[in-house]
Amino acid sequence: MENKGISNAVIKRLPRYHRYLGDLMAQGVERISSQELSARMNVTASQIRQDLNNFGGFGQQGYGYNVAYLYQEIAKILGLDRENSMIIIGCGNFGRALAKYKNFANRGFVTLAMFDVNPEKVGKQESDIPVHHIDELAAFLQNHDVKIAVLTIPREEAVKVAEVLVANGIKAIWNFAHVDLDVPADVVVENVHLSESLMQLSYRIADAAKCRK
Amino acid sequence: MENKGISNAVIKRLPRYHRYLGDLMAQGVERISSQELSARMNVTASQIRQDLNNFGGFGQQGYGYNVAYLYQEIAKILGLDRENSMIIIGCGNFGRALAKYKNFANRGFVTLAMFDVNPEKVGKQESDIPVHHIDELAAFLQNHDVKIAVLTIPREEAVKVAEVLVANGIKAIWNFAHVDLDVPADVVVENVHLSESLMQLSYRIADAAKCRK
Repeated sequence: MENKGISNAVIKRLPRYHRYLGDLMAQGVERISSQELSARMNVTASQIRQDLNNFGGFGQQGYGYNVAYLYQEIAKILGLDRENSMIIIGCGNFGRALAKYKNFANRGFVTLAMFDVNPEKVGKQESDIPVHHIDELAAFLQNHDVKIAVLTIPREEAVKVAEVLVANGIKAIWNFAHVDLDVPADVVVENVHLSESLMQLSYRIADAAKCRK
Repeated sequence: MENKGISNAVIKRLPRYHRYLGDLMAQGVERISSQELSARMNVTASQIRQDLNNFGGFGQQGYGYNVAYLYQEIAKILGLDRENSMIIIGCGNFGRALAKYKNFANRGFVTLAMFDVNPEKVGKQESDIPVHHIDELAAFLQNHDVKIAVLTIPREEAVKVAEVLVANGIKAIWNFAHVDLDVPADVVVENVHLSESLMQLSYRIADAAKCRK
């Protein structure tokens, strides 16, 4: 069963709903209308209703949304109700920063191991996570249930490592390497290209400067 | 003058054109047709022509694109032909990883200073970048021409610091804090919400698993 109807734009908005509902819960808000949520999130109420209707609605006419219930349902849609075991390939600055980020583990994204080629790093621990040699990657994948592989290595190596990952059953890659990975259709890739994000900001600066002229 | 016609989708694709053209140059390719570029980039040739026509085209019937020229023109559109001075607020794991990333400086994104509250970090250097106390932020902004402020601090502090940034003339924020910043219309914000990216990946895993059933 494929959710043909769920567009990328909707998927991109779901985590933001999750964040705002979490904030509302923390503030003790028990129910909210789509109008109130709309004002907080700066999107139209009809967009909110449309987005949520993709998954069954969750709202009640005249009542609005039950915040805790909607939060929980969106968490389920996002797959946050189960553990997503991860490995991080690359024990450089970004790999280590990701390993140290506690919020991932809090949401069920638990890093089982890191991999690197540097003999000064291999065999040690990074934020309590063991660092293995990249040559042990295939064996590790065969012996562990890994859901997500995070790539924080240079682009040339990323392409080769992605092949090892796919050959050993990995179906999800969080890719920080500055390259488009060519993977089979059943493997999902989420790219974080920081340089491209920075270039988009640079474009907007140049464009805004033109407008001020 | 506002480029009303340039959609976000086009802006998001520009850095990718820049990357592929840089790779082609590195491979010694001097000219390329939109068909060949299309096959490499996995987008349609008509999309490429449409995207580039937003900025004047750059191609010649029967010749295609001159790679070096197009690379340079896209760099200009992206504002990479000038220096974009940055400061990084937050000397934690991500802030330090960004400070160490040499590719930013290579593209003209030069970090002038970092800011933190931790007395163990303030007054020292991080990858040759001086770390100042956050209380010195306003004075620093008045005395330096800073184009981009990078926020790698917790969300509560990010909201307050963004106010200081805006009050002191910052027009561009690269925001890694997990919050939507409420800034005036002439301030551009580019968000990198890593948790949300990871949740999107998690959604796609759950969705793909449904399809395999």
